[in-house]
Amino acid sequence: MCQLLAMNSKNPADIGFSFAGFRARGGLTDDHIDGFGIAYFEPTGLRLYYDNRAAMDSPLAELVSQTRVKAANTIVHIRKSDDQLLCNAHPFTREIWGEAWVFSHNGKMTIRDASDSDPINQATGKQGKSSHYIPVGDTDSEFAFCYLLNQLKDRFEHKPDSQTLYVFLTEQCRFLANYGLFNCLLSNGEWMLAYADTLLFHITRQAPFGSASLIDVDVTMDFETVNDADDVMTILATTPLTDDEEWQQLAVNECIIFADGHKVYQDLPKSPVYLSIEKGLEIAKNA
Amino acid sequence: MCQLLAMNSKNPADIGFSFAGFRARGGLTDDHIDGFGIAYFEPTGLRLYYDNRAAMDSPLAELVSQTRVKAANTIVHIRKSDDQLLCNAHPFTREIWGEAWVFSHNGKMTIRDASDSDPINQATGKQGKSSHYIPVGDTDSEFAFCYLLNQLKDRFEHKPDSQTLYVFLTEQCRFLANYGLFNCLLSNGEWMLAYADTLLFHITRQAPFGSASLIDVDVTMDFETVNDADDVMTILATTPLTDDEEWQQLAVNECIIFADGHKVYQDLPKSPVYLSIEKGLEIAKNA
Repeated sequence: MCQLLAMNSKNPADIGFSFAGFRARGGLTDDHIDGFGIAYFEPTGLRLYYDNRAAMDSPLAELVSQTRVKAANTIVHIRKSDDQLLCNAHPFTREIWGEAWVFSHNGKMTIRDASDSDPINQATGKQGKSSHYIPVGDTDSEFAFCYLLNQLKDRFEHKPDSQTLYVFLTEQCRFLANYGLFNCLLSNGEWMLAYADTLLFHITRQAPFGSASLIDVDVTMDFETVNDADDVMTILATTPLTDDEEWQQLAVNECIIFADGHKVYQDLPKSPVYLSIEKGLEIAKNA
Repeated sequence: MCQLLAMNSKNPADIGFSFAGFRARGGLTDDHIDGFGIAYFEPTGLRLYYDNRAAMDSPLAELVSQTRVKAANTIVHIRKSDDQLLCNAHPFTREIWGEAWVFSHNGKMTIRDASDSDPINQATGKQGKSSHYIPVGDTDSEFAFCYLLNQLKDRFEHKPDSQTLYVFLTEQCRFLANYGLFNCLLSNGEWMLAYADTLLFHITRQAPFGSASLIDVDVTMDFETVNDADDVMTILATTPLTDDEEWQQLAVNECIIFADGHKVYQDLPKSPVYLSIEKGLEIAKNA
């Protein structure tokens, strides 16, 4: 299994504090040691690092720790898997409509084993059919990302308006969740989509800023000292990174999209179910 | 203008020696300071770093200098331009037929200014037409890469045999060279294509290995000590990196493809023209 971290903010912001705690789960406080990656949407373009080493051992992760990159959208992934292939490291990226999109997945799916007649295989090129996006590696995650993009490109010749796009993306995430465990993060640099199948939490920080302490490492941050009055940022993580703030949980099958640090779209099931962290981790372990 | 460096080898090899000299041209011995990037095709996947900083200043370039990554195909680019946008940093990558392809360009073209009725705009999405690949940044280089891939995907539903592919790629490079100065490197991880419009040199090293000294920095390497008897590698560079080896020059409009360190395809014009380095640099400066 893997874990996810993301930040969406009004002004470009540094994910360093959250990363310090999250990175520890890649070999120190947890065993997500089969890869690491980070995608920053900087003001002038996408900066993407990925490695097939554990976050705690990766020279790239060390570089991330030492530099203060500011981005309006950032996605981080630590991987636990049966392989350490570089082609399978998250986040994945593809261009659609002239935009760089980035995707990371936490879960285990069965879409690569689906029969040729299964709907999932009609748009992925598995049968050699003409399609826009074909996986390079052999993960279900990249397969799901390619499926999603093929659906988008087949359905919309041009980028649709935001509301149409958000509804369509939510439908596609719900469809993909039928194939197993599917928590995901997706961003085009403007917005950040979070879809929860089991565990995903978020917290929004804005003025008046407080302080918080990380769970995984002994670090406390006073956000007042590093932010301006109009800064707003939302952090997303598989499980909370701090133990003295109130993180909000996404319900099972909930989809939320953030822009400028705020929630701009939410599709919450009518009878929302919230798993305990213990239950969520147990499902992940048994997947 | 920019400069290009590449290596194609039989066994995964470390480009560190060549990189030491080439990097210096990104701020020390030359002024290609508006970006830096490197793409390694490692045995398990593509590792791609790019930065909008000068190679001499980039923490990523420093990481490259300190680590010994072994790859069968490596492309490096140092950029000189009017902007330092991250989205314009080379090398560019896109997936085609389930493979990651990487492209770098040295030159200056006018394809972004071409009229809507110009052939170059029929497959690039400039007019909003349906197309597979659309540039994310605003360089002619990425535009040319997208054009090339759109032509490939429109022409071949599946990856064609190597000979068909090589001939087609050469035709496309010749077509693109009509739009300005176009030296390029292209690789899918199996082979390395080099197309020269003005300056591009190559050298193949194999047993019995000798030694060589870099031009840009005071470093000498005895290749015997770092290679096995069956190692074969070809280095490509805009201008030679060493002054005590015999580099071969590509002719104007020549296309060569290397695999396993050897030349596997060559399209040499009937009356080959070889520019002097002075003349080539002058053309670049005036472009």
